[in-house]
Parts: sequence; structure tokens; C-alpha cells
Amino acid sequence: MLNIKLICLGKMKEQYLIEAFSEYSKRMSAYCKLEVDELPEERLPPGPSAAQVSAALSREGAAISRRIPPGYFSIALCIEGRACSSEQFAAFLADCSNRGASRLCFIIGSSNGLDEALKTSADERLSLSQMTLPHHLARVMLAEQLYRALSLNAGGKYHK
Amino acid sequence: MLNIKLICLGKMKEQYLIEAFSEYSKRMSAYCKLEVDELPEERLPPGPSAAQVSAALSREGAAISRRIPPGYFSIALCIEGRACSSEQFAAFLADCSNRGASRLCFIIGSSNGLDEALKTSADERLSLSQMTLPHHLARVMLAEQLYRALSLNAGGKYHK
Repeated sequence: MLNIKLICLGKMKEQYLIEAFSEYSKRMSAYCKLEVDELPEERLPPGPSAAQVSAALSREGAAISRRIPPGYFSIALCIEGRACSSEQFAAFLADCSNRGASRLCFIIGSSNGLDEALKTSADERLSLSQMTLPHHLARVMLAEQLYRALSLNAGGKYHK
Repeated sequence: MLNIKLICLGKMKEQYLIEAFSEYSKRMSAYCKLEVDELPEERLPPGPSAAQVSAALSREGAAISRRIPPGYFSIALCIEGRACSSEQFAAFLADCSNRGASRLCFIIGSSNGLDEALKTSADERLSLSQMTLPHHLARVMLAEQLYRALSLNAGGKYHK
């Protein structure tokens, strides 16, 4: 069974996102061991400078790095990452299992994105869409895609 | 001001999706006149044949066609449609306004997708992701992208 750790930043405020994520997480749990590690977002003053944003991203990146457990294959979510179909994503997860790489760590950044150094050091970069998603909606969408991929790999019906 | 009609199929059952869509629709309404036309999904027996699915899609396609108002620019959402960034989507909406094409009709199919003939006859095909999204989550994501694009075009801060 896959061990999936999700590192993400900031508390979800909207109840509908909390419930959507909770629902898809619950469904996923039939197929994997899921751990969610929610780190605090760095605080920024209103209208921050590029240097302030960059410094905050760097601190967030360092905090994330410390939470990637040794031996985990890390997958950073970013818009410039590899786009794939749901079927290709399912095949990727099946391939990880087959290779014995059953410990995966997905990383979703803060509202300012992800530190460049962290993206570079991740084992894989994945893009959910060419469109910019709010990071909390990305969390919901990732959970939904993970649930579908795992359910598909387990021979379940693929619900659209 | 843009007139946006959204034709979609089937009632949302999950409260979190209903609330997410309602929230983004409300935010959009500051920037456009939004009309949502929710048509019933065709009923299919369990484990339908390809021919039954195709016939259902065809009936749904015909029902959708009747609801696209004359003079509206129709945009069918489908996985093989044109992918674009949020900024390109905003530019597309701004361009529609500038050309006087201020009446847009977005179409989201049922859980089985959209009729091929309808996709072909649409003025544009748009893809939100290479991944297959549940059609009700696609409705939420489209509303969120529309809100962001319209807010960006109105000079608002782009929230990530």
C-alpha cells in the first residue's frame, strides 16, 4: 500500500474547501496511508516587495524540506511542472508501487507559490492545470485526482 | 458588462460543491451578468453500452443546443480543448468585450462528457486541465477562473 504524505501551507478557511478535501481524503484512505502535514504560511506585510516574497518562499521552502521524510519520492506541484492525464497519473502511481517506491511526498506551496530551490530539488514536478489555481483549491483537486487514480488502479470504476 | 450564460448538466449533490460554486458565482456577479441553466442529465441503466451512452450524449447535446441563445459565442469545455493560462483566459475575455462579443455561453457536459457534434459546432473548445475532472468540480473550477479573470481585467489584485 502506498504511503502518501501531503505537505501544504496555510489553514483552509472556507468550510466548503475543508469539507471537499476531507471527503476526497476519506475516499483515498481506502487505497493508501495518507498523512497531511499543514505548515504555517509565512506572514507578509500588505503589498510586499519581490524580495520579501522571495525571502518568505525561501523560509517556507526550508521548512518544507525538513518535513520530507528520508526515502520519500518528492513531487512538487507547480504550474510549470509536467502535465498529465488522469490515466497517466494513475500509471505513474502504479509504476511507483511496482518499483517499490511506495512512499510519496506531494508538496503544495502557499499563496505565493513554491521556492525555486525546492522545486529544483524535488524528484518530480507536477502541474494540475496551466491555469493558476488557488493553493487550497489545488489541494482539493490533488486529493480528488489521487483518489481517482488509486481507485482506477484498484480496478474501480472511473467516475467522471 | 459581459453576459455569461453557463449551461451545465445535472444537479450538484455535494453541499461543499454547491457552496463553492455559489461563492465563486457571487464573486463573479460583481463583474458580469451570470445566468446558470442547469439541464437534467439523461438517465442511463447501470453498465450502459457505448451506444446507449452515445445516444444519451446526443440527446443532451440537442437539449443544450436549444438553450444557447442566438448571438452568443459558445465555449464547450472538454479535455481536448485549448489549454490556456489564467492570464490568457483573462485576455480572451477582455478581447471578447473589446470586439463587442459580450455574450458568452460556457457549456459543461454530464458525467459522460459532451456530444461530439456539439463540441464541433461550438465556437471554441476550452480545457481546464489535461486531467479528467468530475463535471461538478469542473463547474466550480470554471466559476473560480471566471471570477479571477474578470477581477484581473477590472484591475483587481490577482489572488493565488
